[in-house]
Amino acid sequence: MYRGTAKLTEPCIMGHEFIGEVVALGANFHSSSTGRPHLYSTLHVGDKVVSPFTVSCGECHFCRVGFTCRCVESRLFGTPLTPGGQAQYTRVPRAGGTLYNLQDIPDGSLLADSSLLLLCDILPTGVFAAFQALSHAKTLPFTTRQPYPLSASPPQMGDVSFLPFLEEDKSLTMAVIGLGPVGVCTCIALLDMLVTRKLKFNVIAIDTNEARRAKMASIYSIIGNQQFGEFQVADASNVKELVADLTKGVGCNAVLEVVGNTSALRLAYELVRPFGCINSVGVHSDHAVPYKGVELYDKNVSLDFGRCPVRAMFPMALELLLKRQDVLGSVGGETSLVEKIASFDDAVQIYDDFDKGKCGKVLFDPFK
Amino acid sequence: MYRGTAKLTEPCIMGHEFIGEVVALGANFHSSSTGRPHLYSTLHVGDKVVSPFTVSCGECHFCRVGFTCRCVESRLFGTPLTPGGQAQYTRVPRAGGTLYNLQDIPDGSLLADSSLLLLCDILPTGVFAAFQALSHAKTLPFTTRQPYPLSASPPQMGDVSFLPFLEEDKSLTMAVIGLGPVGVCTCIALLDMLVTRKLKFNVIAIDTNEARRAKMASIYSIIGNQQFGEFQVADASNVKELVADLTKGVGCNAVLEVVGNTSALRLAYELVRPFGCINSVGVHSDHAVPYKGVELYDKNVSLDFGRCPVRAMFPMALELLLKRQDVLGSVGGETSLVEKIASFDDAVQIYDDFDKGKCGKVLFDPFK
Repeated sequence: MYRGTAKLTEPCIMGHEFIGEVVALGANFHSSSTGRPHLYSTLHVGDKVVSPFTVSCGECHFCRVGFTCRCVESRLFGTPLTPGGQAQYTRVPRAGGTLYNLQDIPDGSLLADSSLLLLCDILPTGVFAAFQALSHAKTLPFTTRQPYPLSASPPQMGDVSFLPFLEEDKSLTMAVIGLGPVGVCTCIALLDMLVTRKLKFNVIAIDTNEARRAKMASIYSIIGNQQFGEFQVADASNVKELVADLTKGVGCNAVLEVVGNTSALRLAYELVRPFGCINSVGVHSDHAVPYKGVELYDKNVSLDFGRCPVRAMFPMALELLLKRQDVLGSVGGETSLVEKIASFDDAVQIYDDFDKGKCGKVLFDPFK
Repeated sequence: MYRGTAKLTEPCIMGHEFIGEVVALGANFHSSSTGRPHLYSTLHVGDKVVSPFTVSCGECHFCRVGFTCRCVESRLFGTPLTPGGQAQYTRVPRAGGTLYNLQDIPDGSLLADSSLLLLCDILPTGVFAAFQALSHAKTLPFTTRQPYPLSASPPQMGDVSFLPFLEEDKSLTMAVIGLGPVGVCTCIALLDMLVTRKLKFNVIAIDTNEARRAKMASIYSIIGNQQFGEFQVADASNVKELVADLTKGVGCNAVLEVVGNTSALRLAYELVRPFGCINSVGVHSDHAVPYKGVELYDKNVSLDFGRCPVRAMFPMALELLLKRQDVLGSVGGETSLVEKIASFDDAVQIYDDFDKGKCGKVLFDPFK
């Protein structure tokens, strides 16, 4: 929208990530709102809340089953229909389903506003990308160390086992394409899940922008744990050879695509191994998906596309946020994800810098 | 290849599905073949074997982890490189990894040859399609009755539940596109898995060919179990309205695509709900996948493509074959999947009939 490609016909308030304090409640918020999401009866003026970047009612089929970003009442903040958070005050529709009350979070009050803001989109989106990759049925043989389909089913009569797993079959090789702020969050989430589960791994994080690779490498110098695996950043130009070397030509178990264009999808295909997964959280537009049917058939590729159900991923993202305050809790350091907090007066310059790859995650303080 | 689209330059022996008796063993088969797949030391002349439609060594990374159809030594039977089973004698490369010995199967000797032949491709492929759909992480909320991501992960601190599941959230609506022999096997496998797991369901099986729909309906009249769900056949022309009616406009949890062309993939997209899965076992060719990036993003679609790893799916397929002898054990009846056993002399007429949708699964007896 800022760049003018969204063809708006009238001004609108941007900002799809915001936290804030409740200053007024709608008429549906009262103590007898039973049978509805609990915030309708528990949220109070003065409470501090985090908002996902989309509205979710908490009451429809999609919300009940946890696919909150596809709520039947879904709206994207920062669009003409739903003014966003680049403002001193914001209206949150379906707020009892949408918001997360920090009073419900143990230790929530320890977190800086600049850290909490990461919960609105980019940290849960990174967690979602990593979670999709590790929970896919085609990844399970490598996390359970049971061959497919036993990895996802009870043993059957007449099971005839093949040869036992070798060490190389117990290791996961995964690539993350794109090291913008969401890509960095994806790497942080993926590394945490791999280490927590004590899985052997090789993770390759890819970006054409040298400053982004350097930022990710700095962050890794803080969060890295070489006990279980290896991590490296790579330019797109030589990454195919790198993956081939690391995997004896087999390819990646999963490729997490955090860019949202056809060249990223194409590279993902080239890096993924047969029976691998491409997990895409990139925001794609009107372009055709750059795959032929036979290519997907011949490699038995699986693909997951789409938006993070932030409201449902909150608990996992919050746990990671508390655990990784070393890189997610500070502002402006070499190893901080958030680079600075700016005033709206600086917005034009900052959007321009971000477009040119000269800066990463910057927050706006509407009262600054 | 039979139709001439594969551009062969020399004659070849077709036939990618075959069973047989071992008449000779290669030099690698002997009692001291330790550390190799057990058939190298246990298979004997005279043993009856079933062959998957592709070669798998049982010894490479892909075989060890169960992705046998992507074995590094993979070959497709019935091609110039690997002559197939439409012959009195067939050579099976890497036979110790590829074949399944019926001596290893309890009750294997009870099965007719015409029934065993279904294990070479079409029954495991149907099982694979159904298994992929039911083991996908996006299907788990409906099988575990836990919201995503709890459905695939341990509880996290600060988990705030949405409203409890309603009855409609506990039911799976699934479509199968294509009712050729593989599509029928897919329906049989899917219905068996749903009933075995006591899941509530609606399954819609789609084909434009009336005779194929009638065959499926006849088979369902034998295997149906209305205790847990509903099954119906449908023409492609009105199926969108039917699915909308059944699901209050939400769409299918999963669409199993068993055709292999762009119109089937397109219909699958139109039928699938947000956060649904398209599980494709159709053999796709050089055509582009008919999706725009934004379409997949906006619906959070997941897709699984590719060939069945028959060797790995054997145990599940065999269990189903033994259980469903009522429709998979006979030849030529109204409710039999296999329509007849023919001589090679009738092949031209039968291929022509199959092409025109005038017949379904026909087997050849090379000694007839």
